[in-house]
Amino acid sequence: MARKASLSGFPELLPEERVVENHVLDVLRRTFELHGFSSIETRSLETVEQLLRKGEIDKEVYAVSRLQEDEAARSAEKLALHFDLTVPFARYVVENAGHLSFPFMRYQIQKSWRGERPQEGRAREFTQADIDVVGEDALPFRYDVELALVIVDALGKLPIPDFVMRVNNRKLSEGFYLGIGLEDTAGVLRSIDKLEKIGPEAVAQLLREELGASEEQAAAALSLAAIRAEDTSFVERVRELGVTHELLEEGLSELAEVIGEASKRAPGRVVADLSIARGLDYYTGTVYETFLVGHEQLGSICSGGRYDALASTQKRTYPGVGLSIGVTRLVARILSQGLATASRKVPSAVLVALTDDDAWSAAQDVADSLRSRGIACEVSASAAKFGKQIKYADRRGIPYVWFIGEDEHGPTHEVKDIRSGEQVPADPARWEPPHEDLNPQVGPPSEG
Amino acid sequence: MARKASLSGFPELLPEERVVENHVLDVLRRTFELHGFSSIETRSLETVEQLLRKGEIDKEVYAVSRLQEDEAARSAEKLALHFDLTVPFARYVVENAGHLSFPFMRYQIQKSWRGERPQEGRAREFTQADIDVVGEDALPFRYDVELALVIVDALGKLPIPDFVMRVNNRKLSEGFYLGIGLEDTAGVLRSIDKLEKIGPEAVAQLLREELGASEEQAAAALSLAAIRAEDTSFVERVRELGVTHELLEEGLSELAEVIGEASKRAPGRVVADLSIARGLDYYTGTVYETFLVGHEQLGSICSGGRYDALASTQKRTYPGVGLSIGVTRLVARILSQGLATASRKVPSAVLVALTDDDAWSAAQDVADSLRSRGIACEVSASAAKFGKQIKYADRRGIPYVWFIGEDEHGPTHEVKDIRSGEQVPADPARWEPPHEDLNPQVGPPSEG
Repeated sequence: MARKASLSGFPELLPEERVVENHVLDVLRRTFELHGFSSIETRSLETVEQLLRKGEIDKEVYAVSRLQEDEAARSAEKLALHFDLTVPFARYVVENAGHLSFPFMRYQIQKSWRGERPQEGRAREFTQADIDVVGEDALPFRYDVELALVIVDALGKLPIPDFVMRVNNRKLSEGFYLGIGLEDTAGVLRSIDKLEKIGPEAVAQLLREELGASEEQAAAALSLAAIRAEDTSFVERVRELGVTHELLEEGLSELAEVIGEASKRAPGRVVADLSIARGLDYYTGTVYETFLVGHEQLGSICSGGRYDALASTQKRTYPGVGLSIGVTRLVARILSQGLATASRKVPSAVLVALTDDDAWSAAQDVADSLRSRGIACEVSASAAKFGKQIKYADRRGIPYVWFIGEDEHGPTHEVKDIRSGEQVPADPARWEPPHEDLNPQVGPPSEG
Repeated sequence: MARKASLSGFPELLPEERVVENHVLDVLRRTFELHGFSSIETRSLETVEQLLRKGEIDKEVYAVSRLQEDEAARSAEKLALHFDLTVPFARYVVENAGHLSFPFMRYQIQKSWRGERPQEGRAREFTQADIDVVGEDALPFRYDVELALVIVDALGKLPIPDFVMRVNNRKLSEGFYLGIGLEDTAGVLRSIDKLEKIGPEAVAQLLREELGASEEQAAAALSLAAIRAEDTSFVERVRELGVTHELLEEGLSELAEVIGEASKRAPGRVVADLSIARGLDYYTGTVYETFLVGHEQLGSICSGGRYDALASTQKRTYPGVGLSIGVTRLVARILSQGLATASRKVPSAVLVALTDDDAWSAAQDVADSLRSRGIACEVSASAAKFGKQIKYADRRGIPYVWFIGEDEHGPTHEVKDIRSGEQVPADPARWEPPHEDLNPQVGPPSEG
């Protein structure tokens, strides 16, 4: 990752870095499946019309066209690479609704593309890992609680620093704004969204100048945004602000359900943060953002929320709640900060050495025997001196070298741990390396 | 797969079909790793210049540009989606050579894009699974043998019909053509490549009319192409044609090494077929194609070969040998012919039922306990009647429903196999489903 990408914004990993990324992807996939989420993939291309339906900033979209297509084709339906997995998923749900069982719980781990200015934490091609639950016409609120817990479980298994998921509820914020007489709730949310960047004074100014708020209204909106709590004590603190509105009550009760359950199951990891706005997104209830402790400037590594209508047709509405983990952003940080490394860069636990060139087939027999027990291995391609074959293994990080010899009873087998130098007789049909040597391990770099 | 793709050439799978695809991908990945191949990914985009270096048919290439970019950006370096994984891999090797250990063995499972006319077996977005070994300046021939064996191992573990890998050697063919006085060996290969499509008479005519071959030369070239053998007997049959050339001898000896070893290790699965030409590709030695028995009209499901120079710089040459499995083509055939199906469409083995709405947290405790032992499960989102909750599980194919009750000693637990109706007491800290119910199984559809 310290290497410069040959195409700006399109980083590529070395094999030892890819081991770390694969570990992250495997943990996410496994955790999502343990919680009952099915895997799907959608095509990488959507029609431009579909992508821009919600008014996305179109300069970030990568259009796709055949290099040599004729004018007729050019003027037909325009295609582009998707910039997230939510828009394609919504289309997939509508197109396949008759074949799906609702509530439909799916995870989707795929690349997306955005033509943004590249910087740390923002690549032009990046992998997202999304989970969503979608209902047909209705979706129990419990999934808003459950999704937070699934993400906490998944992130908690990754080699990353401590993290905090900050949760808010749009109904709570919007109900509060309406309760104090600010009707342009979307405008207030957009201003509050800038709190971290520009500070409370500048936000108050925005609220007054752009939204016509009074001093008192601006102060009240900022008081709400200042509330954070690790438990349901935020409810009382909101009530103390003396604002009443039906929508506010609904939002308070929903957020209390998320925080109440999560504070029991994952204390300190899921907190109420009434400044979370997610200004430009079209959420209608719960909103989530997640930050790595000590790496807050990286931005949210996992965000999402509830949509009353993730998708809809003339006949049906599909409400959904989902979260998206920025895998590329997370892995880039793990690698650039050395938070975790791979114990070796190749899958092989064993190199089967060659005594002479004719021994290749016998060496393959040993290798096949090891592989049948799940032990990854390679066979030397030529019978170089043993010292050279050991050096070859060492360069790759392969911990064991297998030697085939011969005595009066037939072939003999020995295996050498090239780290300790210890060499012992071994049976190709039985030998196993210690569990930690079987596959590359991913974890904090070892000391010294 | 019977469903029509909403964008022609861009098929999308249902969750139960994706289970089959994931099984195929997992088997390939696991097998490649057991043979010592490292995982890498390259970016999806290359410069157009890089993609067209070898004179690819450019109308198949999908160009990419930002939707709203200005003229200056447009006239800068043009980008396009890769159409295979070999061109990007060659670039990756050159760019990262200083960080790689050679011979570098990598697998790469990614999507590629081609703007071809869609038909069965040809999608515009498709997944390839490639393995290659690349050397620095030299690469032992043994890898040509090994790669065939890796593919046989991988394909042999998939739920597909029997398959045959047909192998030839460019040196053999080209040496033979030179030996009979046909100098335009590339031209002859291109004609021979059409053998299956247009038949021997038409190929003879092509050879005479386009390449100026005599009757005898055309007949000799066709005699060579007619040779097939499951063992090294092809050597004798080529010798009987009475042609001598140094390159021919080299090719014969190389091909005999591949077929000799493979016929011992995988009898009947790797055969010599001297008609295999791979006309448009730039191979310089071994060439491979693989066909499903009874599905030959699908085309090759795994092809590749040896390059003297997969990549090169001013200072170095990187010879390579590799093969590419057409995963999308293979999976589409498995699904359309019902060769294999998934035993269920969701990962969950267990649905934890809700007795009443307040029991959700206790049900999550049970679910967490099961998950900690690798048992995927879901919790009902609402306390509907048990019959309805069982029906919910049944619709998804979840085999077990867990019930939490209460007696005078505290909570009680029972688990019901909804297929047999059998319900037994169970301990959330110990219960395990039979191994075959733990995860969705992929195999031939069950009878009845």
